[in-house]
Amino acid sequence: MTTAPPAPAALRERAARLDADDPLASLRERFLLPPGVVYLDGNSLGPLPAAVPPALSDVVTRQWGTDLIGSWNTNGWWQAPLRVGDAIGGLIGAAPGQTVAGDSTSVQLFTALDAAAALRPDRPLLVTDPGHFPTDRYLADAVARRRDLEVRRVPPAALADLLAAEGHRVAVVSYSPVDFRTGELYDMRALTRAAHAAGALALWDLCHAAGALPLDVDTLGVDLAVGCGYKFLSGGPGAPAFLYVARRHHAELETPLPGWTGHADPFGMGGDYTPAPGIARARIGTPPVLSLLALEAALTAFDGVDLAQVRAKSLSLTGFFLRCAQELLIPEGFSTVTPTDPDRRGSQVTLRHPHAHGLTVALARRGVIADMRAPDLVRFGVNALYTTHQDLLEAALSLRDITHEAAYDPTPPAVGPVT
Amino acid sequence: MTTAPPAPAALRERAARLDADDPLASLRERFLLPPGVVYLDGNSLGPLPAAVPPALSDVVTRQWGTDLIGSWNTNGWWQAPLRVGDAIGGLIGAAPGQTVAGDSTSVQLFTALDAAAALRPDRPLLVTDPGHFPTDRYLADAVARRRDLEVRRVPPAALADLLAAEGHRVAVVSYSPVDFRTGELYDMRALTRAAHAAGALALWDLCHAAGALPLDVDTLGVDLAVGCGYKFLSGGPGAPAFLYVARRHHAELETPLPGWTGHADPFGMGGDYTPAPGIARARIGTPPVLSLLALEAALTAFDGVDLAQVRAKSLSLTGFFLRCAQELLIPEGFSTVTPTDPDRRGSQVTLRHPHAHGLTVALARRGVIADMRAPDLVRFGVNALYTTHQDLLEAALSLRDITHEAAYDPTPPAVGPVT
Repeated sequence: MTTAPPAPAALRERAARLDADDPLASLRERFLLPPGVVYLDGNSLGPLPAAVPPALSDVVTRQWGTDLIGSWNTNGWWQAPLRVGDAIGGLIGAAPGQTVAGDSTSVQLFTALDAAAALRPDRPLLVTDPGHFPTDRYLADAVARRRDLEVRRVPPAALADLLAAEGHRVAVVSYSPVDFRTGELYDMRALTRAAHAAGALALWDLCHAAGALPLDVDTLGVDLAVGCGYKFLSGGPGAPAFLYVARRHHAELETPLPGWTGHADPFGMGGDYTPAPGIARARIGTPPVLSLLALEAALTAFDGVDLAQVRAKSLSLTGFFLRCAQELLIPEGFSTVTPTDPDRRGSQVTLRHPHAHGLTVALARRGVIADMRAPDLVRFGVNALYTTHQDLLEAALSLRDITHEAAYDPTPPAVGPVT
Repeated sequence: MTTAPPAPAALRERAARLDADDPLASLRERFLLPPGVVYLDGNSLGPLPAAVPPALSDVVTRQWGTDLIGSWNTNGWWQAPLRVGDAIGGLIGAAPGQTVAGDSTSVQLFTALDAAAALRPDRPLLVTDPGHFPTDRYLADAVARRRDLEVRRVPPAALADLLAAEGHRVAVVSYSPVDFRTGELYDMRALTRAAHAAGALALWDLCHAAGALPLDVDTLGVDLAVGCGYKFLSGGPGAPAFLYVARRHHAELETPLPGWTGHADPFGMGGDYTPAPGIARARIGTPPVLSLLALEAALTAFDGVDLAQVRAKSLSLTGFFLRCAQELLIPEGFSTVTPTDPDRRGSQVTLRHPHAHGLTVALARRGVIADMRAPDLVRFGVNALYTTHQDLLEAALSLRDITHEAAYDPTPPAVGPVT
C-alpha cells in the first residue's frame, strides 16, 4: 500500500463553494440518507424519501387495517393508478389524463410496444437500440415474434440512415433518451421528429430520465412512453412503472392485456371487454397499492421543484465529477465514457476500469455506493435533489485511494448482483 | 320502523359453544381487526395481519432506507418472488420451485393462458367458464385473438359434454374451483382428470380458494394455476399474485412477456433472451418489493396451521350462517344461492335479495362489512383464521333488523364501488 497524495485544495474549495451556492440544497432534507454514506446509485434505486414512512404507515394501519375494503373509495385507492400517473405526468411534460401507473416497467413496455405496433398495422419493422436495456430488447423481440414483425437494432446515431432506406416500413422507434451504461443523452426532439417524418411512432423509455431532467412529451409529440418509479423518482424498490399514451391515440388504443380494471364498467363484470375511455383503458389488474402509494408519497419530494434547476444542478454535479476524474482518476488508469458535452450527458458519469467490480465493492466498504455494469464500467448516478459536489469529490478521492491499495479484489464477479 | 324480534336463544348458545370449542380460535390474534367491526369481506380484501406493520417498517426503514441497493442481495430482495412463491406453494400443495409471485393476477393469468396455449400448439380451443371472474374471460379472449384460437365458455357442469364432442381440439381448460358470486365449489379433481383425459391442460384460478381450503395441485396433476395474494392470503391491497407451473412443463415453458428478471443471466444483460431454468423463467420485471414483502409477512399467519382444520372450521362457519339465514333471513325475503352440501361450498355464503346494494351499505353502517355483486347478491366471506360463529350471528341479526327498517336505501348503484 502506498500513501495517496492529498486532495487538491482547489477541488475542495470548488466543491464547497458550489454546494454553498446551490439553490436546491435544502431539498436534501426530503430524503432520509444514512449517515456516513455517499449514495451515488439513485439511478438504480432512489433513496428513501422522508415522506414515505409516515404515509405508508397510514396506508397500512389506518387505510388497510381500519378502513379495510372501503378504502378503495374512501381513501382513493381505486383512482390511485391515474392519480399517480398524473403526478408523474407533471414531471415528464404530460398534461393530465395520459399517464397511468401500476405494473412493472416490463409489463408497461410490453403494453406500449404491442399497442404501438397495433396503431401502425401495415408496417413490419420495430426499431430499437442494440444498447437498450435488456428488457426493452427482449420485449421488442417478443412483440415482433407474436405479430410477425421484424426488429431492427439500430443505434440512435444510425436511425437517419435506416429511415432513409426503410422509413415507410417502420411502425415504431423505441429508444431511451439516456444510455443506461454510458450516461449519454440522445436528442429526443430530433429522434422523435425523424420517426414522425417517416410516419412511425416514437416510444420512449424514460427510466433513466424521468425526474432527472425536464421532459416535454406533449410538446415533442411523443406517442408513447414508459418509465420506472424507483430510480430518479425514488418510489422504492420495484415501485410501479408508468405508461404514457398521447391523448390522440386513446380512442384506437388496444392493449394486449385487457384486465378488468381497464374495463369501461369494471364493476358491471360484463361478459365482454369494453375498454374504458382515455388512458384508464391501459389499466390491467388490481395494482400493488402499498408500493403504489409509497411511490405517490415519494413524488412529493418534487413539490415546488423546478426541473430546469434540477437539470442545471445535475450538470454542475456531473461536470464537477468529470473534472475530479480528470485530475484524480485518469492518471490512475480510468477512462471516462460519459460525454463531456453537457447537451449529451444524462445524470450519471460512467468510468471504465478493468477492475470495475473489485473497485465498486471496495468503494462500498468505504461508504461510497456506486454500481458496475459488466465487464468494466463503474456508474456514478447523481440526483440533484440530494447529491452534493462534496459527495462527488469524496467518491473520487475514495476511488483514487483504493487504486493505491492492494486490498480490493480485482476479480470480476461471475454474476453481478446489483440492479 | 318495526321492532325486530329477539334473536333465538338457541342460535346464540350454539354460536358461543362452537366458538368456545374452536381449536383455531387463537389465530384471530394474528390479525389486527378493528374493534366493533364484523369483517366478512376477507374474500375481497383480507384484513391486516399483525406481522405486517413491523415487517414492512423494517423493509422501509432499514432495508430500503439504510441498506439501500445492497438489499437486493443482503436482504434477499432478489429471491423474494421465488421465496414468496414457495411459501404460497406450501398452501396449495405445490412442492418448492414451481411457484412465483410478483405481478398482478391479470398479468399472471395472461402468462398462464398464453403459455398453456403454446404447450398445446395444435389445439384451437380455450375453454373457460361463462361465470368466471371478468379478467379470466377477457384475457382468455385476448389470448385467443392473438393466437387465432377460439374460446368456448362452458360451465363446469357441461365440460364433459364438450370434451366428449371436441376434447381432441381443446388446448386448456381454465376454471376456478370456487364461483366468486355464489361460492359454489367445483370438483377440481374430476375436472382436472377430465381435461387430462382429453389431452388438454388444466389451468386453475385459485383466487377464491388459496388459503381457504386444502389444495393439492401437485397431487391432482394440475398443469398451471394462478391466484391473488390479497383475499384469503391477506397480503394487502393489490398484493402480488402467484403463478404455479408444474415442473414437468418448465423446460418447454415459453412466457409471453420475457422480462429481464426471468433471464438465465439477468446481470449479464446479453443481447438475446435466454430463459432461466425452472419457474424463475416466469419472472417478468422488477417486482413491487414493498407489496411483495408485506405479502410474505402476511403469510406467516399460516405458520403451523393445518389447512384441513381451516376447511373444517370454514364449513362450520358457513354451515352455521346458512342455518342463521334459514331461521332469520329467508322469512324476510332472502334466498340462498350457496350450496348447502358442504362438498360443494367454498368459504363464502351468498344471499340473494333485490335490495342487495342498499342492504350492504346499511350493514356497513352497523359495522358489518360484506359486499355485493350486481344486481342482487350479498356476499359473506368467512376466513377460519379470524371469523367467529358469533360474528356470523351478529351479521345475520343485523341484516334481519335492517330489513325491518325503512332507513336503508333500496336503490341499486349505478356503479358498484367495492372490489
